[in-house]
Amino acid sequence: MRVSNTVRRMLGWYEGESPGTKANIARILCTGRLAGTGKVVILPVDQGFEHGPARSFSPNPPAYDPHYHYQLAIQAGLNAYAAPLGMIAQGADSYAGQIPTILKVNSSNSLATSKDQAVTAGVKDALRLGCAAIGFTIYPGSEYAFDQMEELRELTLEAKDAGLAVVVWSYPRGPNLDRAAETAVDICAYAAQMAALMGAHIIKVKPPTEVVSLDAAKKSYAGFDGSTLAKRVAHVMQSSFAGKRVVVFSGGEAKDLEGVYEEVRGIRDGGGNGSIIGRNTFQRPKDDAMAMLNKIIEIYQGKA
Amino acid sequence: MRVSNTVRRMLGWYEGESPGTKANIARILCTGRLAGTGKVVILPVDQGFEHGPARSFSPNPPAYDPHYHYQLAIQAGLNAYAAPLGMIAQGADSYAGQIPTILKVNSSNSLATSKDQAVTAGVKDALRLGCAAIGFTIYPGSEYAFDQMEELRELTLEAKDAGLAVVVWSYPRGPNLDRAAETAVDICAYAAQMAALMGAHIIKVKPPTEVVSLDAAKKSYAGFDGSTLAKRVAHVMQSSFAGKRVVVFSGGEAKDLEGVYEEVRGIRDGGGNGSIIGRNTFQRPKDDAMAMLNKIIEIYQGKA
Amino acid sequence: MRVSNTVRRMLGWYEGESPGTKANIARILCTGRLAGTGKVVILPVDQGFEHGPARSFSPNPPAYDPHYHYQLAIQAGLNAYAAPLGMIAQGADSYAGQIPTILKVNSSNSLATSKDQAVTAGVKDALRLGCAAIGFTIYPGSEYAFDQMEELRELTLEAKDAGLAVVVWSYPRGPNLDRAAETAVDICAYAAQMAALMGAHIIKVKPPTEVVSLDAAKKSYAGFDGSTLAKRVAHVMQSSFAGKRVVVFSGGEAKDLEGVYEEVRGIRDGGGNGSIIGRNTFQRPKDDAMAMLNKIIEIYQGKA
Amino acid sequence: MRVSNTVRRMLGWYEGESPGTKANIARILCTGRLAGTGKVVILPVDQGFEHGPARSFSPNPPAYDPHYHYQLAIQAGLNAYAAPLGMIAQGADSYAGQIPTILKVNSSNSLATSKDQAVTAGVKDALRLGCAAIGFTIYPGSEYAFDQMEELRELTLEAKDAGLAVVVWSYPRGPNLDRAAETAVDICAYAAQMAALMGAHIIKVKPPTEVVSLDAAKKSYAGFDGSTLAKRVAHVMQSSFAGKRVVVFSGGEAKDLEGVYEEVRGIRDGGGNGSIIGRNTFQRPKDDAMAMLNKIIEIYQGKA
Amino acid sequence: MRVSNTVRRMLGWYEGESPGTKANIARILCTGRLAGTGKVVILPVDQGFEHGPARSFSPNPPAYDPHYHYQLAIQAGLNAYAAPLGMIAQGADSYAGQIPTILKVNSSNSLATSKDQAVTAGVKDALRLGCAAIGFTIYPGSEYAFDQMEELRELTLEAKDAGLAVVVWSYPRGPNLDRAAETAVDICAYAAQMAALMGAHIIKVKPPTEVVSLDAAKKSYAGFDGSTLAKRVAHVMQSSFAGKRVVVFSGGEAKDLEGVYEEVRGIRDGGGNGSIIGRNTFQRPKDDAMAMLNKIIEIYQGKA
Repeated sequence: MRVSNTVRRMLGWYEGESPGTKANIARILCTGRLAGTGKVVILPVDQGFEHGPARSFSPNPPAYDPHYHYQLAIQAGLNAYAAPLGMIAQGADSYAGQIPTILKVNSSNSLATSKDQAVTAGVKDALRLGCAAIGFTIYPGSEYAFDQMEELRELTLEAKDAGLAVVVWSYPRGPNLDRAAETAVDICAYAAQMAALMGAHIIKVKPPTEVVSLDAAKKSYAGFDGSTLAKRVAHVMQSSFAGKRVVVFSGGEAKDLEGVYEEVRGIRDGGGNGSIIGRNTFQRPKDDAMAMLNKIIEIYQGKA
Repeated sequence: MRVSNTVRRMLGWYEGESPGTKANIARILCTGRLAGTGKVVILPVDQGFEHGPARSFSPNPPAYDPHYHYQLAIQAGLNAYAAPLGMIAQGADSYAGQIPTILKVNSSNSLATSKDQAVTAGVKDALRLGCAAIGFTIYPGSEYAFDQMEELRELTLEAKDAGLAVVVWSYPRGPNLDRAAETAVDICAYAAQMAALMGAHIIKVKPPTEVVSLDAAKKSYAGFDGSTLAKRVAHVMQSSFAGKRVVVFSGGEAKDLEGVYEEVRGIRDGGGNGSIIGRNTFQRPKDDAMAMLNKIIEIYQGKA
Repeated sequence: MRVSNTVRRMLGWYEGESPGTKANIARILCTGRLAGTGKVVILPVDQGFEHGPARSFSPNPPAYDPHYHYQLAIQAGLNAYAAPLGMIAQGADSYAGQIPTILKVNSSNSLATSKDQAVTAGVKDALRLGCAAIGFTIYPGSEYAFDQMEELRELTLEAKDAGLAVVVWSYPRGPNLDRAAETAVDICAYAAQMAALMGAHIIKVKPPTEVVSLDAAKKSYAGFDGSTLAKRVAHVMQSSFAGKRVVVFSGGEAKDLEGVYEEVRGIRDGGGNGSIIGRNTFQRPKDDAMAMLNKIIEIYQGKA
Repeated sequence: MRVSNTVRRMLGWYEGESPGTKANIARILCTGRLAGTGKVVILPVDQGFEHGPARSFSPNPPAYDPHYHYQLAIQAGLNAYAAPLGMIAQGADSYAGQIPTILKVNSSNSLATSKDQAVTAGVKDALRLGCAAIGFTIYPGSEYAFDQMEELRELTLEAKDAGLAVVVWSYPRGPNLDRAAETAVDICAYAAQMAALMGAHIIKVKPPTEVVSLDAAKKSYAGFDGSTLAKRVAHVMQSSFAGKRVVVFSGGEAKDLEGVYEEVRGIRDGGGNGSIIGRNTFQRPKDDAMAMLNKIIEIYQGKA
Repeated sequence: MRVSNTVRRMLGWYEGESPGTKANIARILCTGRLAGTGKVVILPVDQGFEHGPARSFSPNPPAYDPHYHYQLAIQAGLNAYAAPLGMIAQGADSYAGQIPTILKVNSSNSLATSKDQAVTAGVKDALRLGCAAIGFTIYPGSEYAFDQMEELRELTLEAKDAGLAVVVWSYPRGPNLDRAAETAVDICAYAAQMAALMGAHIIKVKPPTEVVSLDAAKKSYAGFDGSTLAKRVAHVMQSSFAGKRVVVFSGGEAKDLEGVYEEVRGIRDGGGNGSIIGRNTFQRPKDDAMAMLNKIIEIYQGKA
């Protein structure tokens, strides 16, 4: 596997991590059409758990089949594919070694009575399935946030011991955070910071809006120019150890193509590392998804 | 490492502790410009977790980078640097062996719905990262205080088994404590006492005010002269095994320089062991912070 | 990583193995200039342990430096690099993710008083160092063979649990085997068979000679035509589950280039999977080694 | 799977065993053309380990491929297939659930310097590969017999804990036993008794000859009529808890067909449970082997 | 603790090691009068175990007291003090933190019936006593060498997990090595190589003589100029990963001062990292020892 100078420099950020963990981070950074650029596009498919199958896959029925997502990620030249245990396993043999996989080890669902997540897989599963990383969601702001952080801590320790990487979905939500707060620029930056402090190697947050939500933080943002997504993304990167963590931004709800591309340009221009984009890909017919991913990759390559 | 007579005498306080733990206490006491004096100045950087990145670092943007704090603590000649897992790791290789580190193993955050903390790291992390101590916050008075104490007990046992030192942030708060109570002299003294009783080697409390808060304690303080910070600090020291524990005082919110120096003189004159001072340092431009720390150190050296 | 149809078919041989193990086998088969062909060239450097440093490296002093071997294997486009703990570690950070590594977990040495090996590393080391496989030597025929097999069994179980591949060096030797017997065709075939039965994924044996050594086996070889190396290699492959294991052949003692190439052609023509070739590479000046490896690769590519 | 009254009665013999273990014994007894009769024919293929590949498979080269043996056992309607780790694994996916497998967990080889065996697999492997039983060889009379028995005890305990059955190959050999002694009727009966005492569920011994070998036993056999194989087999069955263990007899070296059939009739008429017959099957062309196995099954069915 | 650029570069050699381990290596390299130079002088006192108390300490009776050695090492400005459990413990409180200690975890003795060593302490002891490293002796060439290596492997894994450094005494001896062989240049180089391959951070060997001992190695040394100690030391350093391990040389038997100084100059000029010198120090009156150590340090400083 060719490891570019850019990636070698990025691996240097991860002080104190084992060569095994660094090799798995490198594997994600050096796969697909963005290999070696420091940019990444990841396909996450946990919506079947989060929203149920029909809400997730009926817009594009071939996506009911787990193999569909492996094929999409591989053919589009993405960096990695992230999903819960059953999805990863169904395809792990057929596509062994073809794309780095991230085992999503906790999940929520729409039938749940609380805004928590269940731990549904672990490090042994990840090793057995040949994954490069585990993925874990925390909800800062939720009543369960401390419990989730303690689960994350245990899994992180075990994952690093086994030479795996750790990807954290840091999604603020909870009783004191209204809908606007969940994507407020101060909250997104805070979410990224907490994931970094917990030891995450790759951090996933939502693209931040111009909102500043926490009263206590408003003074700190007095002089902040958050007029463009690029500027807001730059602030999130700054909040991730001065840019020394890989931070990827979710695609959010399905939207029109130009909206997607504009968002990706903002992420790129703000120095974000890339996109982790699920519904916007697998809810389109495959050809459309391939065309869209091609364009996104070209944007990250600076060609579009 | 030169261990002064003063420090040797102080190590004698820690009866029943292993030589490994004493060596780590010694390491903190014998590093930096105050080495060997029994006085300490420690840089704590957990505000990114507690208050979020912008509130913590936007006043001085270079501080977004974890290396900044290592450099600041080393260049200013401080005794130790304390931070959560991600901050300590990001620099642990580059600055290996250059300054004792204290791994803050629990953390709260401003999005939390409860006045608790999450355990975010442990003793294995501390050993792997070469830390001299773990740091743990308890909130005596909170609904979570007993749980926190039980977490502290487990971590303390494990840390001492591994030859590490234990630093306890003892911060009273909770439903029966109003704002004034949190820094009342009786409450601060009580907080220090509880930390000592739990087995802490180094205790961090807030500088006490003249307030006496607990009704039940008022009679005991009838003849107490708490008119100066020095006298109040002396009482906190007395409450820490007759001065036989290292007690350091937080700097609290950013304030003007003279306010900082006056407080430090009070701590010194009351026999306190030193300051653990975060926001007041890293929220200033580096040169200002260096000048301020120089002055603080000179105060503890009795030169200013 | 592109996994060719050839490799996908080969992965199908490894029934009962986890996707993690298959992915690591795929990683070895899909790296370097022979990626995807089913052919492999591996650089093994355990001669420092086996024969001592001067006998190993004095013919080409840059080879004293562990980084040299990483560079050689990467630049020559080999499939993997195999070495003991210290050698793999010294380079594991610098070359993280650049080439699959095989941690040789037992080693003999020339000062030893018995024909045994010491277990010098394990699966935890392999995970921490990001290795794709562990490597283990057995000496069928030795007084220690049963003990070695039992060590191998334990390590194999643990390696497979962790999603690693297992490479077995099967080198017959012992009181009843004279020099000629050690490379006799019946003995080499038997050695390969035993490694396969023990659960090895990749098997290393010596190129077999025309000798048939075991009296009890002579009748079975009555009609066997072992007149060319290709025919003898074909028999070894047949003895490795009808060719359904990856079998690589050692290069043996340093020899002249034409001798090396002729041997490689024999391995290729007999359907062997490749060469694991140490001394013949690193004991030459680097340019010569690169030229030789280029030629060997071309032979396996059917171009030379 | 239909469990006949005969088999239900036989399961009643195995007092103290778990339902899981009984279900696995039932699985062996209720598979193939002899299902439910209490008779069994098992295919064992460990000769590749014991004698090497060419001696084992060159008489019938398709047998080099592990799949061959699965197919043979399934197509001939046998009760089970027994082999070492690599052989069982290579086919475990393709033939999952099609025939009960017995994982042979220790093995000797013809290069060995001592008459011992190596433990080459274990209960975890058997569970992972879906085996019904483990198989283990002891050599009563050998210098290693006590060690082997202690290994057997550990593995038996573990196997029964996991609901597996235990098959013991009980093959007397050693310094005080000459060639004739190894198949002497008193020795065979003794070997079966020891296996039963060790907790074996299925016992494999060699067909006994008329020889009485142990001097100390001769008086006991004074009135014994061992003139036919049936009478000798009946004595072995008697020695196996009065017939309350499943005892199968090996086929020994390849012999002519009539010899094989005569031996099988003797086993049947003496009340033996069946045959475990390797070389005589897989060293013939497949059609011949199928015809022979058909005849053997008809003999056990009382039709031939 | 000031970590010089030289030491920072040296820490870079130890790829794959945790910051904790690197910090402990740094602690040894940055203590005493040679701090930061990359040179080290270590006091080892295991002769009480190896040779008995009178042979060790009667030439200088104050040395019977374990405190004597702590004082000597500290006052002379050495880098570290190495001794068995009891010696380290007796003084661990009194001198906590004053000098890095190396817990010698195996030991031989003069009453022993075999040329082996007993493991007499472990990693938990080292942590509890505040040691920077464990020390372990292997005897390559002995009948116990493989067992010792396997003990070392276990202890090394555990030590590195706990952030400790590993020092290996590599002392060839055994039935095939005569007295001259034990210090032969080829054997010393081989001993250093094996320690490095086992994962040692600091290697102790004996100063090599001009002898080349192994017949098989003689050809490799044909053109080797070993006429001075410096040249021979340079070869040992080359054999230690091209100089990328810290290698220290024992002082051997007590000798006259000029002999000691000459040897130290040879080590220095050959690029060796320093001396580990026991009997030559503690068997002299303290003032003489201090003078001698002062001179040795000056030699390593290039001043003498």
